[in-house]
Amino acid sequence: MNIGLIGAGRIGRIHGEILTKHVTGAKITVVAEVYANGETIAWANGLGIGKVVKDYHEVLADPAVDAVFICSSTDTHTQIIMEAARAGKQIFCEKPISYDIDKIVEALRVVKECGVKLQIGFNRRFDHNFGKIRAMVQDGKVGDVQVVKITSRDPAPPPIPYIKVSGGIFLDMMIHDFDMARFLSGSEVAEVYAQGAVLVDPAIGEAGDVDTAIVSLKFANGALGVIDNSRQAVYGHDQRVEVFGSKGCLAARNDTDTSVDYYTPDCMVSGNPIRPFRVRYELAYATEVQAFVDAVNGGKPTAVGGWDGLQPILIGLAATQSLKEGKPVAVRRLDRI
Amino acid sequence: MNIGLIGAGRIGRIHGEILTKHVTGAKITVVAEVYANGETIAWANGLGIGKVVKDYHEVLADPAVDAVFICSSTDTHTQIIMEAARAGKQIFCEKPISYDIDKIVEALRVVKECGVKLQIGFNRRFDHNFGKIRAMVQDGKVGDVQVVKITSRDPAPPPIPYIKVSGGIFLDMMIHDFDMARFLSGSEVAEVYAQGAVLVDPAIGEAGDVDTAIVSLKFANGALGVIDNSRQAVYGHDQRVEVFGSKGCLAARNDTDTSVDYYTPDCMVSGNPIRPFRVRYELAYATEVQAFVDAVNGGKPTAVGGWDGLQPILIGLAATQSLKEGKPVAVRRLDRI
Amino acid sequence: MNIGLIGAGRIGRIHGEILTKHVTGAKITVVAEVYANGETIAWANGLGIGKVVKDYHEVLADPAVDAVFICSSTDTHTQIIMEAARAGKQIFCEKPISYDIDKIVEALRVVKECGVKLQIGFNRRFDHNFGKIRAMVQDGKVGDVQVVKITSRDPAPPPIPYIKVSGGIFLDMMIHDFDMARFLSGSEVAEVYAQGAVLVDPAIGEAGDVDTAIVSLKFANGALGVIDNSRQAVYGHDQRVEVFGSKGCLAARNDTDTSVDYYTPDCMVSGNPIRPFRVRYELAYATEVQAFVDAVNGGKPTAVGGWDGLQPILIGLAATQSLKEGKPVAVRRLDRI
Amino acid sequence: MNIGLIGAGRIGRIHGEILTKHVTGAKITVVAEVYANGETIAWANGLGIGKVVKDYHEVLADPAVDAVFICSSTDTHTQIIMEAARAGKQIFCEKPISYDIDKIVEALRVVKECGVKLQIGFNRRFDHNFGKIRAMVQDGKVGDVQVVKITSRDPAPPPIPYIKVSGGIFLDMMIHDFDMARFLSGSEVAEVYAQGAVLVDPAIGEAGDVDTAIVSLKFANGALGVIDNSRQAVYGHDQRVEVFGSKGCLAARNDTDTSVDYYTPDCMVSGNPIRPFRVRYELAYATEVQAFVDAVNGGKPTAVGGWDGLQPILIGLAATQSLKEGKPVAVRRLDRI
Repeated sequence: MNIGLIGAGRIGRIHGEILTKHVTGAKITVVAEVYANGETIAWANGLGIGKVVKDYHEVLADPAVDAVFICSSTDTHTQIIMEAARAGKQIFCEKPISYDIDKIVEALRVVKECGVKLQIGFNRRFDHNFGKIRAMVQDGKVGDVQVVKITSRDPAPPPIPYIKVSGGIFLDMMIHDFDMARFLSGSEVAEVYAQGAVLVDPAIGEAGDVDTAIVSLKFANGALGVIDNSRQAVYGHDQRVEVFGSKGCLAARNDTDTSVDYYTPDCMVSGNPIRPFRVRYELAYATEVQAFVDAVNGGKPTAVGGWDGLQPILIGLAATQSLKEGKPVAVRRLDRI
Repeated sequence: MNIGLIGAGRIGRIHGEILTKHVTGAKITVVAEVYANGETIAWANGLGIGKVVKDYHEVLADPAVDAVFICSSTDTHTQIIMEAARAGKQIFCEKPISYDIDKIVEALRVVKECGVKLQIGFNRRFDHNFGKIRAMVQDGKVGDVQVVKITSRDPAPPPIPYIKVSGGIFLDMMIHDFDMARFLSGSEVAEVYAQGAVLVDPAIGEAGDVDTAIVSLKFANGALGVIDNSRQAVYGHDQRVEVFGSKGCLAARNDTDTSVDYYTPDCMVSGNPIRPFRVRYELAYATEVQAFVDAVNGGKPTAVGGWDGLQPILIGLAATQSLKEGKPVAVRRLDRI
Repeated sequence: MNIGLIGAGRIGRIHGEILTKHVTGAKITVVAEVYANGETIAWANGLGIGKVVKDYHEVLADPAVDAVFICSSTDTHTQIIMEAARAGKQIFCEKPISYDIDKIVEALRVVKECGVKLQIGFNRRFDHNFGKIRAMVQDGKVGDVQVVKITSRDPAPPPIPYIKVSGGIFLDMMIHDFDMARFLSGSEVAEVYAQGAVLVDPAIGEAGDVDTAIVSLKFANGALGVIDNSRQAVYGHDQRVEVFGSKGCLAARNDTDTSVDYYTPDCMVSGNPIRPFRVRYELAYATEVQAFVDAVNGGKPTAVGGWDGLQPILIGLAATQSLKEGKPVAVRRLDRI
Repeated sequence: MNIGLIGAGRIGRIHGEILTKHVTGAKITVVAEVYANGETIAWANGLGIGKVVKDYHEVLADPAVDAVFICSSTDTHTQIIMEAARAGKQIFCEKPISYDIDKIVEALRVVKECGVKLQIGFNRRFDHNFGKIRAMVQDGKVGDVQVVKITSRDPAPPPIPYIKVSGGIFLDMMIHDFDMARFLSGSEVAEVYAQGAVLVDPAIGEAGDVDTAIVSLKFANGALGVIDNSRQAVYGHDQRVEVFGSKGCLAARNDTDTSVDYYTPDCMVSGNPIRPFRVRYELAYATEVQAFVDAVNGGKPTAVGGWDGLQPILIGLAATQSLKEGKPVAVRRLDRI
């Protein structure tokens, strides 16, 4: 299976390195990067990838390419998805697909018509902790799910210019947690109520966003949920989930950088949550990409399809509206594509 | 310091036993219990208390009694508070003072006029874990408080007849957590949004209450918060709090019944959260009562005064209204008494 | 059941207070303390004990006394045990019974002849953690016991004058752990090899003792074990045990003073092991004394009899010899009394 | 830096894969494997290594090869080290160098004369937990080291034929822990006393070895230590260390396969220690090999030299003798090479 990597920015390079070092059954044969320069070529060559182009259409036109990884900017996703589908390529697309529901729906219809596979990059579904909880929930270990709680805090906020074009905290950051809420509960989200505040950096507020948010959820199956986000946890990447049900409770603590305890006269000191998201989710990325490769090679459905990519956008838009209007908002329901 | 114990039901007996066994500087000289019988007398005698009466007025009329513990039913609290204050007794009153704001306000005014002390029985403030977090927050250890999270789940729901007269989950159960939210954040709660569901027992719904609830909070100082309650955590008494701020995060895990880990081929097995609330909060009760005795004997203000007893009721009423109306509700503000 | 308390020093007062506050079915009616003064009388009166004498023979001669707690100095234990047994009193005796094997054997024979009960004060057997491990081991949870590991470190060394008359670290401090080794493994100790060093305070070495020690054990059933002691763990009372077997492993962590975690930019900070032994073992003392009272009142054997009191002395003497001679030493075996 | 890999068995393949995927600044250009077949070639090609030979002399004769990884059977190590050194190659050699002290000494002398670098494969020194403890000990965090405790238990015993040629548990398995004892304490081991038992599998005893062992250590600097090994911990790879000192204590818990806690009515269930040693120590292997590459490329001493490779053998031989003779044995001291 030959892969064309479209976009060699931060996330594109993660996938490029993961594919080269940790994934079997696939290799990257070409990289398309609109801003490609000597440094891009050096990076690609370092991974044993000989071909770097600027125009992704060269990738789509290459008959030797079986699949594409779309890691370009969000506004280009749906266009490339449709072109790739029409070119018969299998598709891995980074999240979010788009912020425009109509464009997403159109893209998913084209994917369906063309009969290609599509996997959306919700990598946390492949995390060892969260994946285990999902499996145990599905195995009935907590009985009926009653409450889902998700804490997700980044070590530090992104640059203000990024904040301005990010779509806001609900579509940029909490979107992962909306996906996780569906993944863990096994139910759609029916309604949200969002609280937000600017507590980390006033510049984030000036950019029109909040940096701290709590969203209450009502699930279609009657369960309740809550997600809290912060753009800055000074102690590292705080990533915890909890599923409480009639038979018990499953909770993921943070992974820590070491298992060392230090006993002093005053206190006991331990390792922090792992800070860099790249390190924290290295294994999850590898598992995610391997899952895509295996699904394509094995002719099976992908683990996170286009429909799963669409729902968190719908929830994020409802949360954005809820924060603006100061009241609960129902999540828009669409016919299944 | 001689104490008259008014009410010898479950909570009255806890205080009676705590006072006798764990508290210095005070002793119970008389018990008033409207349903007193031979068993009541035997219980009192077992603690070395010689006098048991049915009418609490006898206690108030006894010049040897310095202070009263009001542990009678909630609807009698404000009346007894006012009478005790006018009789010059120092007062410890179980929570909630009342569900009627006007009556609370009147009682607090009488207490103020009479110049007696009043402490409300929010025992969790005296818990070793929560007290430590409060102290560390006040010491600036988390910097500016940004998010307060409280999980509070009981091992099993109370009987349905109790549910019917309980005032609802927000006034009966979450009231402790509303107090805790104020205690930990150091700020008043300005607005709440309540979600509720009947997921544990349909009979609770038929009794007009919910058994699972999530309440989002906005604090007066701009911080956000969330509390989740369940009437039934099959694994024990789940009592966790978390205060997240600009400099770090403080979190209390559950206390467990043992510190034993059991490594098996399949998993590692540890002790559960301590189940009986009496055992979980034994030390907190003792600390609470000692604090009252010390405040009275030392002529200092009590740690949890009438104003602190009033606020959680106001929050609980707002949450009750929010759940009914399906929208956020501002907490009523009163002039400080 | 009326109890005469013989000895009102540190451990005597612990038992006096535990008996009064936490134990049902027994009460102290008289205290004998050779150095009794006004302060002793005030302490006794504070617990509601009206009678304080200097000569313990008055206690033994009192027909209203059913049982005695022998908390006097170690060198008086066997003499008082024999006199009490002959006076028909039930006996609780603090550890160690004596350092003189012949005297212990004689005392146990007298106890047996007189048909009274004898319980030795190995309070740690009644600790919630260690008791749970013992129960699980006996229930087969670890399969065949292969390795027993015990860590026991005190927060600070006792005064040097105490060290000089203590009998040495193996008979004064590790004796608890020798008892624990038998208790957890369910097997006798056959052979020991002791290492010792003076690493905490040179004055301990000058007093003829070591302050740090590791003893390897061979059990009669073929299992292996190791105990390490230190007179000073600056971070508190370090008390851990581990039983490793063919089906799994049971390990007791330290109990901590709180369950609070503090996440900072540098590390995660938690509570220390509980420091004062009185607080750490409060519940164990209460359980221990209640067990004695229940055994006497119920006419059942005590949980820790004279034979169990004798064995740790034999092991301690072997360890002392091993350290002196620098080689493994077999533990002396006696015919069961 | 071009590397020749000598030996492509289990450990050779680990190093081959680590070098290819995780290490920068070096690449394998040739593999020598005496039993090389088509499968060996396929494995090598899969890593992009084009050349596979049977005779390691071809590797040593190749002027393009800068360094060798000696992963052949233990009995060939010293011979290959000497030949490689004389050929001017930098050397990474798996542990143990040899069981023959004279041969080790000779090899180390040749390495010294030839001026090449030698690193011994004690990979656990590069573990994130143990490395952190070592750094903190050296930074004075525990003050004076008083006690070192190491627990090391394998998930399952190796095959009996392997046991027979392994050199015994002290030279095959505990050798890692002897190295760790030196690494953590910063002191040489002066004397050992070994206990051993056959508790896991009688066939191990019939093969002349023990499967369970406890070794007490005396360090040259006066500290004490203890190591316990078992060939079978049914719950996974149990790898813990503890350094106790005058200012505090450092302890490494096991790394677990997940951070998920499962609360049930009966107990709290968590993840086990990571079972496969390859997974547990993946990061340590990568760090180890990178350290070698960096040392060679940077012209600096290796982190674990020949002297460090020799000492654990001397300790292991002393432990073997101690077990045989049933008494403490001093570790042989040699002049520093």
